[in-house]
Amino acid sequence: MQRIPVAILGATGAVGQRLVSILFDHPWFEPVALCASERSAGKPYGQSTRWMLPDPMPQAAATMAVRGCAPFSGPAIAFSALDADVASEIEEDWAKSGRLVVSNARCHRMRVDVPLVVPELNADHLRLVERQPYPGGGAIVTNPNCSTIGLVMALKPLDDAFGLRAVNVVTLQAASGAGYPGVPFMDLIDNAVPYIHGEEEKLEAEPIKILGRLSADGSRVEGATFGVSAACHRVAVSDGHLEAVSVSLERPADRASILRAWMDAGADTDGLRLPSAPERPLVYIDAPDRPQPRFDRGAGKGMSATLGRLRPCSTLGWKFELLSHNTLRGAAGGTVLLAELCVVKGLVPRAAGFAVLGEAMPELELEPALA
Amino acid sequence: MQRIPVAILGATGAVGQRLVSILFDHPWFEPVALCASERSAGKPYGQSTRWMLPDPMPQAAATMAVRGCAPFSGPAIAFSALDADVASEIEEDWAKSGRLVVSNARCHRMRVDVPLVVPELNADHLRLVERQPYPGGGAIVTNPNCSTIGLVMALKPLDDAFGLRAVNVVTLQAASGAGYPGVPFMDLIDNAVPYIHGEEEKLEAEPIKILGRLSADGSRVEGATFGVSAACHRVAVSDGHLEAVSVSLERPADRASILRAWMDAGADTDGLRLPSAPERPLVYIDAPDRPQPRFDRGAGKGMSATLGRLRPCSTLGWKFELLSHNTLRGAAGGTVLLAELCVVKGLVPRAAGFAVLGEAMPELELEPALA
Amino acid sequence: MQRIPVAILGATGAVGQRLVSILFDHPWFEPVALCASERSAGKPYGQSTRWMLPDPMPQAAATMAVRGCAPFSGPAIAFSALDADVASEIEEDWAKSGRLVVSNARCHRMRVDVPLVVPELNADHLRLVERQPYPGGGAIVTNPNCSTIGLVMALKPLDDAFGLRAVNVVTLQAASGAGYPGVPFMDLIDNAVPYIHGEEEKLEAEPIKILGRLSADGSRVEGATFGVSAACHRVAVSDGHLEAVSVSLERPADRASILRAWMDAGADTDGLRLPSAPERPLVYIDAPDRPQPRFDRGAGKGMSATLGRLRPCSTLGWKFELLSHNTLRGAAGGTVLLAELCVVKGLVPRAAGFAVLGEAMPELELEPALA
Amino acid sequence: MQRIPVAILGATGAVGQRLVSILFDHPWFEPVALCASERSAGKPYGQSTRWMLPDPMPQAAATMAVRGCAPFSGPAIAFSALDADVASEIEEDWAKSGRLVVSNARCHRMRVDVPLVVPELNADHLRLVERQPYPGGGAIVTNPNCSTIGLVMALKPLDDAFGLRAVNVVTLQAASGAGYPGVPFMDLIDNAVPYIHGEEEKLEAEPIKILGRLSADGSRVEGATFGVSAACHRVAVSDGHLEAVSVSLERPADRASILRAWMDAGADTDGLRLPSAPERPLVYIDAPDRPQPRFDRGAGKGMSATLGRLRPCSTLGWKFELLSHNTLRGAAGGTVLLAELCVVKGLVPRAAGFAVLGEAMPELELEPALA
Repeated sequence: MQRIPVAILGATGAVGQRLVSILFDHPWFEPVALCASERSAGKPYGQSTRWMLPDPMPQAAATMAVRGCAPFSGPAIAFSALDADVASEIEEDWAKSGRLVVSNARCHRMRVDVPLVVPELNADHLRLVERQPYPGGGAIVTNPNCSTIGLVMALKPLDDAFGLRAVNVVTLQAASGAGYPGVPFMDLIDNAVPYIHGEEEKLEAEPIKILGRLSADGSRVEGATFGVSAACHRVAVSDGHLEAVSVSLERPADRASILRAWMDAGADTDGLRLPSAPERPLVYIDAPDRPQPRFDRGAGKGMSATLGRLRPCSTLGWKFELLSHNTLRGAAGGTVLLAELCVVKGLVPRAAGFAVLGEAMPELELEPALA
Repeated sequence: MQRIPVAILGATGAVGQRLVSILFDHPWFEPVALCASERSAGKPYGQSTRWMLPDPMPQAAATMAVRGCAPFSGPAIAFSALDADVASEIEEDWAKSGRLVVSNARCHRMRVDVPLVVPELNADHLRLVERQPYPGGGAIVTNPNCSTIGLVMALKPLDDAFGLRAVNVVTLQAASGAGYPGVPFMDLIDNAVPYIHGEEEKLEAEPIKILGRLSADGSRVEGATFGVSAACHRVAVSDGHLEAVSVSLERPADRASILRAWMDAGADTDGLRLPSAPERPLVYIDAPDRPQPRFDRGAGKGMSATLGRLRPCSTLGWKFELLSHNTLRGAAGGTVLLAELCVVKGLVPRAAGFAVLGEAMPELELEPALA
Repeated sequence: MQRIPVAILGATGAVGQRLVSILFDHPWFEPVALCASERSAGKPYGQSTRWMLPDPMPQAAATMAVRGCAPFSGPAIAFSALDADVASEIEEDWAKSGRLVVSNARCHRMRVDVPLVVPELNADHLRLVERQPYPGGGAIVTNPNCSTIGLVMALKPLDDAFGLRAVNVVTLQAASGAGYPGVPFMDLIDNAVPYIHGEEEKLEAEPIKILGRLSADGSRVEGATFGVSAACHRVAVSDGHLEAVSVSLERPADRASILRAWMDAGADTDGLRLPSAPERPLVYIDAPDRPQPRFDRGAGKGMSATLGRLRPCSTLGWKFELLSHNTLRGAAGGTVLLAELCVVKGLVPRAAGFAVLGEAMPELELEPALA
Repeated sequence: MQRIPVAILGATGAVGQRLVSILFDHPWFEPVALCASERSAGKPYGQSTRWMLPDPMPQAAATMAVRGCAPFSGPAIAFSALDADVASEIEEDWAKSGRLVVSNARCHRMRVDVPLVVPELNADHLRLVERQPYPGGGAIVTNPNCSTIGLVMALKPLDDAFGLRAVNVVTLQAASGAGYPGVPFMDLIDNAVPYIHGEEEKLEAEPIKILGRLSADGSRVEGATFGVSAACHRVAVSDGHLEAVSVSLERPADRASILRAWMDAGADTDGLRLPSAPERPLVYIDAPDRPQPRFDRGAGKGMSATLGRLRPCSTLGWKFELLSHNTLRGAAGGTVLLAELCVVKGLVPRAAGFAVLGEAMPELELEPALA
């Protein structure tokens, strides 16, 4: 059975490596190109990459020659782990050439015609791509910021059940969120830093779009009406963003009804059998001191958000703690899950020499064959 | 010139060691007894203590024989760094024997006749001791919890200038706050823990008392009327509690007026020339990423609270970051400063063989001689 | 197919938890009893244990009632993760009652009639149990100290090929080696400690026994004749002991021949298909800066020792770096592997109501059925 | 009284900042120029530097405009904290222009006519500068590598008393040794790295030169004859290099005689009253688990090396632990101490518009005036 040929843009960086690790062992996708800056181009991936994951580099990746990031024929999907400063133009070039770009970069996230998607929450926003100007099925879809994803996964059921009025979130974020080399050791040893450049802005804006409502004609997202106030910190943790969240709700809620809202929350991915979808997107841990990054970031193979310590907040109403793995669910894993959703939604373009899957996906009947 | 003889209760623990380090080099106080559990009694302090401070143990302390914690004659003041589970009774015993107890333990803090004092903020609350039942000038005064002190130092000027309506505080607290051995290394390596036993309760209750108003007859404190919601975390830091604070104010404020309120805040200790009082209790750092524990905890020799990142909060109004040294300002240093305040306020009892100072202190004229 | 019933002594501690994690998912063994101090006895394991592993506690363990450590009928093997101060007597009691004790505690390791075994290296030492005084097949076999195992795995091929004359080893050991709560956070934050109680003595003595030769009559081990000098350090690492090793060899060696000695080293476990045996006990990493605890401790599911940086030493001849996982290979995993070896060697006693396996094991023919 | 005008080359880096911190508060030296790359030139130092020390930046430094590193008139001494890749040529340019260069960079250290000096140990090596080709009193003197200095301070008394035959040293080095940004946080969290580029070579070569003997005609240093074998590790520590050292001695020694050799060791700086010289260059700590970086790096204001755990080594004879502060004694502090030595030895050139001091220094009579 044929897998979908994909390229990984920014393959040598921290998120790129996670993509390589996931995609070389993926049932639907086949990495045919590892792309990075021209400086690395031509060299084997194994030589141009300082591999930073505990799991070994896939052998097939190690020997693949790195290519530049300009579009070329072959891949139907381009996974983008590019730095924001170069991502914008390169991603557009791939979309213009008729490919699906699934991006982890921030540059297109807030564009009115670009869906910003957490597959379980707002799969319907993918319809925005119909408004994009790219030919041949080309499109750009985006994955939210690493600190946003876990938060909106926890907020969506609350918004559905009780109506969100206001959210206060204070983060304790892992160093891997800054990429590699990222944060110097001398900045975080015996320390915590109450600032991450641009992070609070993203964390205050992205939930509004993700939890917004697609207009009836599918042309735009009407932003959610609650406000988010964020204070972001870097702490001495490798992986796993911990967030202290307080919420003000429109309608009355008690502890039991909030827990039930989380437990019973349906997901837009239910029944789709996406390979990267965790069995339970939300896991509530009923212990006094959880979730904790070192012990809980691996929940659902790093794709579940874990919750704990739900209790009344004298200021806003309710508060709780939230954890999600920032380079799996929050970056590479989330991006792959989004691509899987695009496959079953028929967004993989027929151009680019890859005709079959795009047609059949909407009916989901090809899935058994794929898996 | 004669110094005031003092005892240190719980001298071998983490806070006790800080007290030893400060008091053996203090211009007013002379440690005459180091008290600990009966198990250590009789042994030299240097042998019964696992010294944990970078500065060396004072030589005079090392050779002093440890005593049990029951009262004995000699000391006019007992500094208590006892664990809460034994502190209550022992502190009462010292007060009953006519001594001033300056306590860092939590057990008496919320008693209606016990002042809970940050010297710069609510020195007038010391009058509560007149309602205490102890003979011969015996009294108990208490120092707040380590995470409370910095917070109220920042809140008081805001409450005075604009009226506080509500406060949301999320803490990133240092491991030394748990004493020694305290937090196991395996609990904090590559981790953060969203829970500290009993801490949120203290952080939500103590500010109400400290920023409350003494009734006209001096018999009780009427609690402040704002609410505090706290979420407490332990992070991989040795010393220095960082707090992300959001406030809702009664009256309009802008950035300049808030900064001015902090800068211009007077202190109840102004003019008293207390040896441990920092030149500036509040220091605002105008940098994008401060305060940080490793770099700012030493401000004012660990007795200043540092502030930064004042900015609007879409949920509550204004938010900022706050740092204070938890074992200096937040424990041992704060306790010594409180004792200094008690000296100039005439609270050191004349009984216990120490007659001179208590009389003269209210007029403050002995100060030059003391210093 | 029937699995061998086993008890875990000291099941609530750090090594005990690793045993629980491994044994509840083991093809040959079936935990029928979780034993701890009398204080925990009667309570469900899930309530009496502060679980510290990232993987969740096995459900079957959580609901099992904890028992005291005195022998009872049922288990054929007792895995001991007891603290050394109580282990000696309890382990003897189990042996006296006719069971096989596989111990991770240090107390019996150096006894002349007790085998101290790394299964790949000196399986023949198991014959020592014939000299033990216990009835009904009762016996005690022991697993070495966590810092010893990796070292002897690297040294054995060098001793076989070139003859060891002297060894200098400096360790950088993980905090988990001290158990839980173990090392206080305040002792290791921004620090390294050049001392571990009793560790240098163990690291200098145990290799001599393990790499010694069983006398012809199987009555004793003649110790190896090389000397070991050890300097042990605790560093800010969770799991994985790193060791800098220098060796003086009897016979000429060059880089290629040493690498070949490591690569070609046979193992006493070859062909035995023990479930916990790693495919490659020794892995040499040809990179300038490896092995490293965070990246390499998981090699061979934590059961391989990794080597790197082989280079000449101007003082002793050759030097290299060595890493092994201290709570897997170095404790729980090594103990389980040793028990597996005992099974195939026929050491599981027929008494204790477990007749079948013991008989068949020596011929190894039951293995397919077991696996 | 006039202070000697000095320039700091590489003033914005990690070692440069330490130099700024020391020299703006120095009784003999007056910083008149802060030099860095052309990119920073013209901007105030306070704006072009990411200050990384807990103590605040000196106010006078903050407002000083940064200059490029090419020589200019004014400074009599150039302190060099330049990176090795640019240091070689710039330092030569300053020497050619008749100034004294006191360098912390490695590039000239092993040159036959350049002294490599630890002031207490080999002050006589300064005579080598007479062989340097620079006009007008220009000269280059060098400070050893940060891991070398503490080691040779411990070895010199042993070599003098017993004769060194061989040294084995394994280091646990702090992250600040790599400068800033230096080691990424992701490389050291929960980790240790058994490699530092070029470090083992320096640590094996520099002691041979420092502990070598100046030839009778002062033309060259005859290297010491013992061998050093080094294995270098980076650990999760901010400041303070810990080293496990084993030594083989020519002549018999016992514990008492080794301790006495360390205690009684004279220093070439005795009687010179150099402002940066510690009262005791070597401090032996008689405790089972010391020295430790966090607790002992500050000994002698960071200028003393601390020793501990002297005990027999079965392989080489004796072993001990050693700690020194790598950015104070090991870099900036050591460089300033060396410059002080040069002043009293009359090496500050009369050219460069600074005539007075150079003449009087050899007789040392100006010292009281200076201090």
